[in-house]
Amino acid sequence: MSDDEADRDEDGATGSNDGGELEDVLSTVQSRVDPDADERARLRAVAATLTERAEDAATDLVAGADVLQVGSSARGTWISGDRDIDVFVRFPPELDRETLAEYGLEVGHATVPDGHEEYAEHPYVKGEVEGFDVDVVPCFRLESATEIRSAVDRTPFHNRYLEERLDEALAADVRLAKQFLKGIGVYGSDLRTQGFSGYLTELLVVEYGGFRSLLEAAADWHPPVEIDPEDHGADISFGDPLVVIDPTDPERNVAAVCAMENVARLQHYAREFRTAPSVEFFEPREPTPLTEAALREHLSDRGTTPVAVRFETPELVDDQLYPQLRKSLAGIVTGLEDCGFDVLRAQTFAAETAVVLAELSVAERPAIERHLGPPIHVRAHAEGFYDAYADDPEVYGPFVDGDRYVAERAREWTTARAFLESDAVFDVGLGAHVETALEDGYDVLVGEETAALLPEFDRQLGAYFDPQP
Amino acid sequence: MSDDEADRDEDGATGSNDGGELEDVLSTVQSRVDPDADERARLRAVAATLTERAEDAATDLVAGADVLQVGSSARGTWISGDRDIDVFVRFPPELDRETLAEYGLEVGHATVPDGHEEYAEHPYVKGEVEGFDVDVVPCFRLESATEIRSAVDRTPFHNRYLEERLDEALAADVRLAKQFLKGIGVYGSDLRTQGFSGYLTELLVVEYGGFRSLLEAAADWHPPVEIDPEDHGADISFGDPLVVIDPTDPERNVAAVCAMENVARLQHYAREFRTAPSVEFFEPREPTPLTEAALREHLSDRGTTPVAVRFETPELVDDQLYPQLRKSLAGIVTGLEDCGFDVLRAQTFAAETAVVLAELSVAERPAIERHLGPPIHVRAHAEGFYDAYADDPEVYGPFVDGDRYVAERAREWTTARAFLESDAVFDVGLGAHVETALEDGYDVLVGEETAALLPEFDRQLGAYFDPQP
Repeated sequence: MSDDEADRDEDGATGSNDGGELEDVLSTVQSRVDPDADERARLRAVAATLTERAEDAATDLVAGADVLQVGSSARGTWISGDRDIDVFVRFPPELDRETLAEYGLEVGHATVPDGHEEYAEHPYVKGEVEGFDVDVVPCFRLESATEIRSAVDRTPFHNRYLEERLDEALAADVRLAKQFLKGIGVYGSDLRTQGFSGYLTELLVVEYGGFRSLLEAAADWHPPVEIDPEDHGADISFGDPLVVIDPTDPERNVAAVCAMENVARLQHYAREFRTAPSVEFFEPREPTPLTEAALREHLSDRGTTPVAVRFETPELVDDQLYPQLRKSLAGIVTGLEDCGFDVLRAQTFAAETAVVLAELSVAERPAIERHLGPPIHVRAHAEGFYDAYADDPEVYGPFVDGDRYVAERAREWTTARAFLESDAVFDVGLGAHVETALEDGYDVLVGEETAALLPEFDRQLGAYFDPQP
Repeated sequence: MSDDEADRDEDGATGSNDGGELEDVLSTVQSRVDPDADERARLRAVAATLTERAEDAATDLVAGADVLQVGSSARGTWISGDRDIDVFVRFPPELDRETLAEYGLEVGHATVPDGHEEYAEHPYVKGEVEGFDVDVVPCFRLESATEIRSAVDRTPFHNRYLEERLDEALAADVRLAKQFLKGIGVYGSDLRTQGFSGYLTELLVVEYGGFRSLLEAAADWHPPVEIDPEDHGADISFGDPLVVIDPTDPERNVAAVCAMENVARLQHYAREFRTAPSVEFFEPREPTPLTEAALREHLSDRGTTPVAVRFETPELVDDQLYPQLRKSLAGIVTGLEDCGFDVLRAQTFAAETAVVLAELSVAERPAIERHLGPPIHVRAHAEGFYDAYADDPEVYGPFVDGDRYVAERAREWTTARAFLESDAVFDVGLGAHVETALEDGYDVLVGEETAALLPEFDRQLGAYFDPQP
């Protein structure tokens, strides 16, 4: 294959491994991720049964309904062991939403007799059939993806687009790509991961003509990367580091959720893998749980002061919880830094409890702070500032620095703990449910007190002190 | 007088004191600064004698030479007690510089028999005559100030310009203005003070038509303030907060030396004086000497950590010393801040020893620092960074933050003392003679060790801990 021959980047800095070792690794991975004939046959049989059941139920309800198997199991891109079957039931667009929902559930229960109802944009039925996890989802049957009324209506168009382009070889490469992205921790478009969705992965493999050439390209990406498979001529600026215009909808960036860090990680690991191929890239890293002794040693080596705000985890699905945790993390970091408590690194974790952890370079400040006043030539403001401080015996100044007054006045918070334990923490821009959780009470842990986060977060802290790209 | 009637600024924020109190204060000051008839007569007599002696000596040497009394004593703008008489000897422009210097000294010695030679741009003779300090300075007699060959050639033009415009009343106001500027600490265009020269003060009083209206105007200045008494139409951007185009030379800003702080101080004290007139504004503040006990109390109240670099004062005139000290101060402050040692305020003093003092909000940093690497898409740099740190057991990371690598590595200096005691202090951009002085050895004082600066700098430190506008 041409794309794993020895090559150099434009700067001549890096050569990839010779193809032999890389191909050996890929065969090993392929043998793990490719479903064998037996698995394929079983899936095909179950899918056929489900489709038949759904078709019978749907056409009983309304003429013009049809049924479509979609997703990776429909396209032969699932990874061996995945047991998801997605059955989409398409109803005529004349139906109103309520009837669609009602019919959808009826068909769902008929298809998956032991199923239960779940609620996304539409309610749908989910359940187990012969060891497979089955979703039966209703949607509208439309002429074009631009007419969609909800996200699920788009799925049949995605499915058709990919089915037309994925042959056996590309499907195999999709499996490699998915496993690679899983291995490096960036697979999944949920809002916790903010990584690469299955559909995005398949589009990238199709676009670049395979897994190896996708890696070769990604290693040299200069974000923002814009990919427009159907040449829609994107006239919309997305502002995302990776833009893949949906072939079925020119206004949608399939990679909108993908965080800049995860694009960068793909670039990093693409280079690393090509330089020194190993199956380890395809195996998600399990962080070593941190012991209390190791925590103390890290803190002593680093000389920093960790502070943690710990509270009961709000009862939310991950797609709601993690954006709120990240918002709260950003707010608390900004709040700390605005008070002069410099943050070296920060992170948020959640399990039974949730934690915003900030590792401080500076955890204490002196009793006074420099307070910069207005330019002296802005007379009314300047006089107001001067008069406010001139007679305060606690204040040094006002004096003149450059063209401004400066006063040295008492600092509100001289320790990070005092700041975090005060009501000021509610003014930093917390996520709404995090704010509610904090109102019910929270702990502030400082320095070695953070050992109280063990063992609940021993793996997260293990990863924190062994940070990887 | 119209300019001290009750008035309001545009924002209506401030009323000035009613004129009576202000006028009472000004009369008191006037009675102190106005030379009485006896003093005037004595000065006139001595000046006449000196002029005659100089004329005789000069015309003996070269036809076309003449003599001019210049400066505040010539214009009646000196403050009572000042005892400076400046005699300028003008030679024809055909003379070469060497002959000018030679003749100048000859005339100088003839005029001031006990005088000694000093060296500015030209050598000149300085000495005491009947209790007056006399300078006899040679210069070229030119048609226009734009033809000047050195700064002293300009003086006769300045003198003529002011003599034509200063009447008795304005001269009295110049004396008030000078004493006010002395009182608030901004009089003098030497490079230690960086304030208002005598010539600048006289121009401002002439321009605004008096001391009271100068204060009224200054209180409302919006720097950059541009004053162009002869409407030269300045086509040069000076970049200074106060620009007074020299009436005798359109390319020169008479206020070029005047620091932004000193312009701001004039604005501040102009407002304060007009609001609450007092003779104190005309009396230079004598800072209370700081005791060791008071120093300790300030440090404990403020919670800061002062650090001082102390060395033998380079043997330089103030006009060379203070710019070098200020440059060294700026360099050391930047050096400290670049290492994470946040500076609250800093100052330099000189006597027998010289000191750069920085008061730190943060005097210690943890063992590690965040080191931001290149964007991951800048492949050659990114790979170089990653390879440099990936296998270093002392380094945490590299990991990915945004689109960049970050490594947490050992910090070079964890205390300000270690930084200041290291050779790194020579890389911060010290003044040349300060650098030489430091090479001969210096002390680093931290925290209460700065008590060793007492009593040498007890007044400077008294002022430091009682900062005024």
